[in-house]
Amino acid sequence: MSAAAAGAAVAVGAPAVHAKKTYHWKMVTTWPPNFPVFGESANLIAKLVERMSEGRMKISVYGGGELVPALQAFDAVSQGMVEMGHGCAYYWAGKAPAAQFFGAVPFGMNSQQMNSWLQDQGMDLWRELYGNFNLVPFSVGFCGVQMGGWFNREINTLKDLKGLKMRIPGLGGKVIAKAGGTAVLSAGGEIYTNLERGVIDATEWVGPYHDYKMGFYKVAKYYYYPGWHEPGTAIEMFVNKKAFESLPRDLQQIVEAAAQFSCNWMLAEFDAQNNKYLQKLINDHGVKLKKFPSEVLRQLKTYAAEVIAEVTAKDAMSKKVYASYGKFQKMVTDWNKISEMAYLSIG
Amino acid sequence: MSAAAAGAAVAVGAPAVHAKKTYHWKMVTTWPPNFPVFGESANLIAKLVERMSEGRMKISVYGGGELVPALQAFDAVSQGMVEMGHGCAYYWAGKAPAAQFFGAVPFGMNSQQMNSWLQDQGMDLWRELYGNFNLVPFSVGFCGVQMGGWFNREINTLKDLKGLKMRIPGLGGKVIAKAGGTAVLSAGGEIYTNLERGVIDATEWVGPYHDYKMGFYKVAKYYYYPGWHEPGTAIEMFVNKKAFESLPRDLQQIVEAAAQFSCNWMLAEFDAQNNKYLQKLINDHGVKLKKFPSEVLRQLKTYAAEVIAEVTAKDAMSKKVYASYGKFQKMVTDWNKISEMAYLSIG
Repeated sequence: MSAAAAGAAVAVGAPAVHAKKTYHWKMVTTWPPNFPVFGESANLIAKLVERMSEGRMKISVYGGGELVPALQAFDAVSQGMVEMGHGCAYYWAGKAPAAQFFGAVPFGMNSQQMNSWLQDQGMDLWRELYGNFNLVPFSVGFCGVQMGGWFNREINTLKDLKGLKMRIPGLGGKVIAKAGGTAVLSAGGEIYTNLERGVIDATEWVGPYHDYKMGFYKVAKYYYYPGWHEPGTAIEMFVNKKAFESLPRDLQQIVEAAAQFSCNWMLAEFDAQNNKYLQKLINDHGVKLKKFPSEVLRQLKTYAAEVIAEVTAKDAMSKKVYASYGKFQKMVTDWNKISEMAYLSIG
Repeated sequence: MSAAAAGAAVAVGAPAVHAKKTYHWKMVTTWPPNFPVFGESANLIAKLVERMSEGRMKISVYGGGELVPALQAFDAVSQGMVEMGHGCAYYWAGKAPAAQFFGAVPFGMNSQQMNSWLQDQGMDLWRELYGNFNLVPFSVGFCGVQMGGWFNREINTLKDLKGLKMRIPGLGGKVIAKAGGTAVLSAGGEIYTNLERGVIDATEWVGPYHDYKMGFYKVAKYYYYPGWHEPGTAIEMFVNKKAFESLPRDLQQIVEAAAQFSCNWMLAEFDAQNNKYLQKLINDHGVKLKKFPSEVLRQLKTYAAEVIAEVTAKDAMSKKVYASYGKFQKMVTDWNKISEMAYLSIG
């Protein structure tokens, strides 16, 4: 958006005629309570809104399962059971396939690129999509390029992916399936044991900070990079549309600004913590870093294009969203080749 | 900062006892009025503050020279003539050499890395430095990796920099001087004519969006990348400390959130516009892109290290700030080698 268009979500609202009214809202999240970075973002937003509104608006944050199960957050907010939710758009692929493009796309845009696309074009499409569910979406941050995952098998050629049982959700899982592997879904709490017992051969999670806390280094041989399957995962907040429109305009703008605050905070926090925990993994626990071979990455990229072609062929809104996403990715990549990429590769 | 520490600038403030009072502040900037992105950021902050405060706080934004000359913004706010300023920290190197590290550092951190450092450690040091001038600093955005500049001479080896007259300010200019060139300072309005008439052989400016508007493609042969001299320039807002502390807490938080909003907005806006204008420059105007040779970049990097060593040897605060900056850069580079960089280089 242009500076003039900032606050586009807000313009739909009512004028500030309820200035004296107080609001006590609930935010359900898809994360365990106070989950590092993700859950902290929800807490940060609640704190900022309360401070900026001088207590006229309070938000109580609930971990997944505390009020509704994690993966019912979308429905709970859509139906107006609670006013706000915090999660990741790819969780709602079953309800709206196009939501995946607002979460993570294998070989898609990284965080900086994704942030630019959302601001320039993506948010309008996201509002259109979620509007069908009586929701207003907000971007609240990005993860950076994730790690490729923990493997108990070396990946030297594409053949090594055949028969691989890997915990990997979403579009990335479909890519692994095309390569002859098996994408396994398991909840966070089960992954460690499954990896230890050989129920799975590999798992992706987030990055050094979160992966360290899960202890995967104790039960996996190799730590692969880069995270081709989630290069710039976007985290979201969604607000019941009717509830949002009932807010006076100042509080609407405060909610939007709190989301944007979190957006800038999250990637910075990820980088700061990932730095530190990467050193711990390597220096204190002897973790071996391995890069996926270029040829394997190239082949996975071809499979990813096939997966995306299948999704967009079946769903008109996915086609519309990806038309914008794909074009922007091409343009921003041309630009980044002579800016960020050329700079980072100086060595 | 951790999520818990967000709003650290705010914690110094007074409790919210003046809720009914209204504030009409002035913000002087170092930019021409409504200057693309930079000036728009100042306007955006003013608009957000007014909206979030329901009009209790209004900020009038002034272009450089409208109220005080551009480069007197720092003094004007420090002395309390006006409440707020908007610029770039390297402009104040003459008053506080350490300020340069909060602006742009040749071969320093890119925008994403800089944002993480500021949040994790840098803002505390910046507050300490500006506190001596009765100012509270805020980061309001980043430029991304700039372009290397417009040249009328090919740069094939380091020898081609000898005798080169280049418009390039700050630490980057000192690096060019070490390479045997002459760093020329000229105001924005004079660069085009100087380049056309051969008064200078080369100039840096910003990136495709701003460079296009300056029309440099009409008078320069080559457009070089990457912008080693300004890889992640930070833009700042500074507020008179006494004025800031006189605000009620909700307005303090609103001012901080508006700055953070701009911070996330600016890099996204730069990338979106630079994409588009890069295509125009290449397709409509036949601009020739050239990459600085690797050997030239390596040598310039060595000179940059010498320049930084000289600055930090002479000024204790510069030494303290760079100790934090340099260590963070090393760690985040290790992390980025296996994340952002490894991902962007898949091809």
